[in-house]
Amino acid sequence: MAQQQAEASAGTQVQVGVYGLGTMGSALALNLADKGIRIAVSNREADWIDPFLEEAGPLSSRITGAADLGNFVAALASPRVIILMIPSGAPVDDMLAQLSPLLNPDDTVVDAGNADFNETRRRTAQAKTFHFVGMGVSGGEEGARHGPSMMVGGSDHSWQQLQPILEPIAAEFQGDPCVAHVGTDGAGHFVKTVHNGIEYADMQMIAEVYGVLRDGQGWEAPQIGALFANWSAGKLASFLVETTAKVLHVTDTDSGKPLVDVIRDQAGQKGTGRWTVIEALKLGQSASAIEAAVGARAWSSAKSARLAAATQFPGVGQVELDPATLENALFAGRVLAHLQGFEVLRAASAEFDWSLDLARIAEIWRAGCIIRSSLLDELAPLLRKTPQRPVLLADGMAELLAPAIPALRQVVGTAVAAGLPVPALSAGLAWFDTARQGTGTANLIQAQRDAFGVHGFERMDMPGKHHGDWG
Amino acid sequence: MAQQQAEASAGTQVQVGVYGLGTMGSALALNLADKGIRIAVSNREADWIDPFLEEAGPLSSRITGAADLGNFVAALASPRVIILMIPSGAPVDDMLAQLSPLLNPDDTVVDAGNADFNETRRRTAQAKTFHFVGMGVSGGEEGARHGPSMMVGGSDHSWQQLQPILEPIAAEFQGDPCVAHVGTDGAGHFVKTVHNGIEYADMQMIAEVYGVLRDGQGWEAPQIGALFANWSAGKLASFLVETTAKVLHVTDTDSGKPLVDVIRDQAGQKGTGRWTVIEALKLGQSASAIEAAVGARAWSSAKSARLAAATQFPGVGQVELDPATLENALFAGRVLAHLQGFEVLRAASAEFDWSLDLARIAEIWRAGCIIRSSLLDELAPLLRKTPQRPVLLADGMAELLAPAIPALRQVVGTAVAAGLPVPALSAGLAWFDTARQGTGTANLIQAQRDAFGVHGFERMDMPGKHHGDWG
Repeated sequence: MAQQQAEASAGTQVQVGVYGLGTMGSALALNLADKGIRIAVSNREADWIDPFLEEAGPLSSRITGAADLGNFVAALASPRVIILMIPSGAPVDDMLAQLSPLLNPDDTVVDAGNADFNETRRRTAQAKTFHFVGMGVSGGEEGARHGPSMMVGGSDHSWQQLQPILEPIAAEFQGDPCVAHVGTDGAGHFVKTVHNGIEYADMQMIAEVYGVLRDGQGWEAPQIGALFANWSAGKLASFLVETTAKVLHVTDTDSGKPLVDVIRDQAGQKGTGRWTVIEALKLGQSASAIEAAVGARAWSSAKSARLAAATQFPGVGQVELDPATLENALFAGRVLAHLQGFEVLRAASAEFDWSLDLARIAEIWRAGCIIRSSLLDELAPLLRKTPQRPVLLADGMAELLAPAIPALRQVVGTAVAAGLPVPALSAGLAWFDTARQGTGTANLIQAQRDAFGVHGFERMDMPGKHHGDWG
Repeated sequence: MAQQQAEASAGTQVQVGVYGLGTMGSALALNLADKGIRIAVSNREADWIDPFLEEAGPLSSRITGAADLGNFVAALASPRVIILMIPSGAPVDDMLAQLSPLLNPDDTVVDAGNADFNETRRRTAQAKTFHFVGMGVSGGEEGARHGPSMMVGGSDHSWQQLQPILEPIAAEFQGDPCVAHVGTDGAGHFVKTVHNGIEYADMQMIAEVYGVLRDGQGWEAPQIGALFANWSAGKLASFLVETTAKVLHVTDTDSGKPLVDVIRDQAGQKGTGRWTVIEALKLGQSASAIEAAVGARAWSSAKSARLAAATQFPGVGQVELDPATLENALFAGRVLAHLQGFEVLRAASAEFDWSLDLARIAEIWRAGCIIRSSLLDELAPLLRKTPQRPVLLADGMAELLAPAIPALRQVVGTAVAAGLPVPALSAGLAWFDTARQGTGTANLIQAQRDAFGVHGFERMDMPGKHHGDWG
């Protein structure tokens, strides 16, 4: 049947092909059809196609199923647009190799998976018979189906093709579609990677505050949930704080307990958090709050070691922190996690010549994606005013951040004294205090390096490279 | 003249060739000759050879200079040993390509530079006509000349050749030479990388305590130096604490001020600290204290941004911490930095099938290298007893570490409240508190991931993968 449909519709103006009918691909395909866009779909396992068309219901009139890759490509109007939503890595290379002989130089193939941007840069350079685009898509299945945030890399030519297709399906923030051509080659996947890194840090900071309330103040899950619900109407307004409130309120029907209390404290992770930290290091930056979040997930998987360590190194104190202090501390931590992420973007933009518009990136993260928040709407205009400055020094940043810092100090200090782990909050604060230390302590490090390794040092009071007579 | 010497000594039993007569290569060559080992030397710029032979003085009777690579190789007794001490990266690959046709399958070529262990693994696999060994050498010029700590990778065959050459020139700790065959292929360079990572963290933690005393307590450099001198006789006894005491006492002859006070607070860095953090992440570990040190050096180079941020976000409080508390805090931080490093080694050993002997590694770091300390002598027996456990859980670790933790909490908490940056100390403490949290907070993260991404979760009370009804 799929085969027949492909043949029947060949010659109609099919605007875009979606290859890969897993959770995300199906959702994106339905979103496109919903917006009146004629699409062709295909899948490695061809027997997924008919069930998908059934699921599509009335929308299937706009969808051409094609079991055969040749028919899939032939069904598309030229210049073609093909969106791949398949597992990252080797499957993408395999697919590109298969597509390559079937395509024309004006065609565009979009990898909409979570690729390592280094791979995207390589694939872009290697694509000879078509334009290759790496595109970050955030928002999970729900976003893909009803409006994701999309970060598009690749050429201007491809963006001309993609813009009319992607703007209708994107999430909207006050009428502004959350999609942009952020830069060439791997820029889209890089921006998505950093998005996910910020997501890691934000989730970890929320979990740290939850842990302080649970273990340090003896609060039950619904009580903590109520506080997060309250916060979701204030300066912490965001999808993740809303989600936190929601999940903390759910009762497990089997045990009658709060569901979070029966969930095992072992979190999985994919590569993007780790990638953000690694790329930050390569760029001479430090995404330490994101590193803390990645590290905390790594430790979470070592459950038996943690239980043993809890016995060997016992002791957690009780604390009393008022809700407003915790709210401000979490806000300050969130700002700092975002600034780390944006600073990595700024460094990458310079390194890879992407001319990233940080303000626009903040804007397209205001809806559709996992880190959408009122903070991003506050950050965007600040990042727009002084794009050449380190983000911590943007006009208005001090007014946004400084008032919340004392609360962050109080929460980190109190948690540290009690033995409650707050790795991401404390890493964010340490990054801030290091960044604002006008006269640092690297003079001592330079003295040591010269004393044992003859590395030399610069002086404050005269130019040139010097060595000390260290005796 | 060099050419003549090479011809004259062809046929004598020259035991090892040293290629590369820079600072480190020259020092290592003189160390070998000093121990009665007959060596040949060569260098890309052949005109470095004669000055080196002159510098060698009486030792030159044991040294054959060879300007030509063919003569250099021909001068060596078979099976040959060649030690390269040349810049890492492409120069090593070029050199191996030149040497390859001149060598026999029993010969060994040692890369004694600071290579990325991934490159060493690649070169080991690619070396077809000889054995390739990556060797980490620590101790700077002084160590290379009079006794370095050496971490040897590569094959057992190569170790048979190298052991009688390296043991005489290694540093000794109570008669035990600080050299070992730590594992196959890239193990030697990996262990050296982690050594350097620990060195970064240790130096940063020392600098943080210095900063607390300087900025938080108004101490002058010599006063801080006296305290470090005092500590160098106690539980912090180590080369780096001694060096700190030494450099803090030096007066600048130009200005009459302490020399550290005129040194610009911008520290350089090479790749090894960063590599440690990156490899830790790839192995599912977190070297967060090392990351903090790398990040602090990165921030140190952004001097103008820090000065601007100090104006926009002003304010540092005064503190009063007694010396014993600071000593214990620094000791706890140092232990935690080492445990992070050893845990990375443990993970790498499993991943690359190296069977690393962590206790032996601690032992060969007790002399000759930059991180040599009394702590390593304390750690070695603990790591020997229970090698299969996470290092935090080694028998006796609680007795070593736990008594110093309250001081670390006090220093971090006090510094955090005052706005004094202590990124590495606080990262170490956060890692510790995360690692000993028997019931963590990843249950909340798993709930969130299931709520927005349908990732699923495990339960404490029943097997299998579950999803929540999040409404």
